[in-house]
Amino acid sequence: MIIFSERINGMYRDVRGAINDKNKAIVQQLAREQVDGGADVIDINLGPTKGDPAENFVWLARTVQEVTDKPLSLDSAKPDLLVQVVPKVKQALPDTKLVINSSTAAPENMDKLSPLAAANGAGIIGLTMDQEGVPGNVEKRVECGAAFLVQALEAGLAPEDIYLDPIILPVNVAPKQPWNVMEAIRQLALVNDPPPRFIIGLSNVSQKCLMNHLLNRTYLVMCIAAGLNAAIMDAADRDLVEALISAEVLMDKHLYSDDYVKAWRMQKGLASG
Amino acid sequence: MIIFSERINGMYRDVRGAINDKNKAIVQQLAREQVDGGADVIDINLGPTKGDPAENFVWLARTVQEVTDKPLSLDSAKPDLLVQVVPKVKQALPDTKLVINSSTAAPENMDKLSPLAAANGAGIIGLTMDQEGVPGNVEKRVECGAAFLVQALEAGLAPEDIYLDPIILPVNVAPKQPWNVMEAIRQLALVNDPPPRFIIGLSNVSQKCLMNHLLNRTYLVMCIAAGLNAAIMDAADRDLVEALISAEVLMDKHLYSDDYVKAWRMQKGLASG
Repeated sequence: MIIFSERINGMYRDVRGAINDKNKAIVQQLAREQVDGGADVIDINLGPTKGDPAENFVWLARTVQEVTDKPLSLDSAKPDLLVQVVPKVKQALPDTKLVINSSTAAPENMDKLSPLAAANGAGIIGLTMDQEGVPGNVEKRVECGAAFLVQALEAGLAPEDIYLDPIILPVNVAPKQPWNVMEAIRQLALVNDPPPRFIIGLSNVSQKCLMNHLLNRTYLVMCIAAGLNAAIMDAADRDLVEALISAEVLMDKHLYSDDYVKAWRMQKGLASG
Repeated sequence: MIIFSERINGMYRDVRGAINDKNKAIVQQLAREQVDGGADVIDINLGPTKGDPAENFVWLARTVQEVTDKPLSLDSAKPDLLVQVVPKVKQALPDTKLVINSSTAAPENMDKLSPLAAANGAGIIGLTMDQEGVPGNVEKRVECGAAFLVQALEAGLAPEDIYLDPIILPVNVAPKQPWNVMEAIRQLALVNDPPPRFIIGLSNVSQKCLMNHLLNRTYLVMCIAAGLNAAIMDAADRDLVEALISAEVLMDKHLYSDDYVKAWRMQKGLASG
């Protein structure tokens, strides 16, 4: 499992304030906590912040990179902003591996972003949706995912740099979608050999739900059993990370040992916690 | 999900002592805790106890039934003991619904036990193994499960009274089996329409493992996503039951509400906890 930290996101009030005030300390403290929890990639998202988005993005990237050399995932729903920002971040942080988060499978969207990823040695997350919006069923997710995958491979990306995101919706308003997302992962895993990676923005499943932590860790475990191998999640949620590690043990992807959580942390070079 | 309580089992020292001493209070306290936690069926297993097994079995069944009218699951690996005990328990407790736990798919075993279940209006659990022992792979599990299912249907049992148990082994010694069991469930669910039920003896997955509670609840969630609809488990483990309810919400089998754990308990007629 590749853990993308979800926490450096302007949708969170503390991060939004920190970006607006250019307060490095808050962002860096959060980044450290995520890395300490096991994050492999730091996703950064401006959210609704003030000022020039491109400048803010570069500032945020630099701020995070001052405390960790983990790869960054540049998270925006605006393709033109990503086109503008990716080369700048690359320039500002020449040794940084990037992931572009995200493209859809709409042609005008992926035709911009997949070549951008290829030209900058970046990975890319492709949402399984097109210009018609988020699919309510499995079939359309598989269709969009396959279209994105083919296009990204043609643009020169390697399968391991392509992440498909089947878009999980909140269970309280869309109760059939958790299963549909798992089924889409299972079916898309058969499309290509070697398969791409699969990722979800985990917290979406429990948006505005009272028992969000319980729902998050339950759904993460279910998706890992379906073939998920990356998640945008709160790496500082210890129960969530322990559920993830247990799921990997049960899928025979992490070797069992009596204290397999400690072993996992040691393998990652983290304090034994 | 149908929750079979695992706790009234002579493998536990307190229960073994209680059976040997005919101490009803200990057994009845445990049975109450399991029912309060959400158990639908009370599995009873003598374990290595002293005295006449048939007499002990009837005593144990009566003792449990004095405090709950939940169905009983008579748990023994000895077919001849089950043949002897089922009619006696039935006679002693005429209104009790029974489950026979368990038969294998070995002909001499299922030819005795499926007709016994049919004649006594009981359900039956069929292990996906035959005279050659526990399978190490998916294929043999599916083969044994299908053979058992066909035989049980021919004996006159309804699909909803037939439980297939694909036999989970401890992850610390058999790391590939958790996945094989899930895959066997997925494949066997396609064999028959309507399908039989699927059950596992959950604690086996974490036998002699340090983090057994975490492994149990993680694996239960994974198996529910694969199609499991019954488990022999500790219904008094609150974290485990909450993981189960969350998994049912995410599979759209229990309606979402903000406090869906409370709603689940109310539906079952339990105190709101």
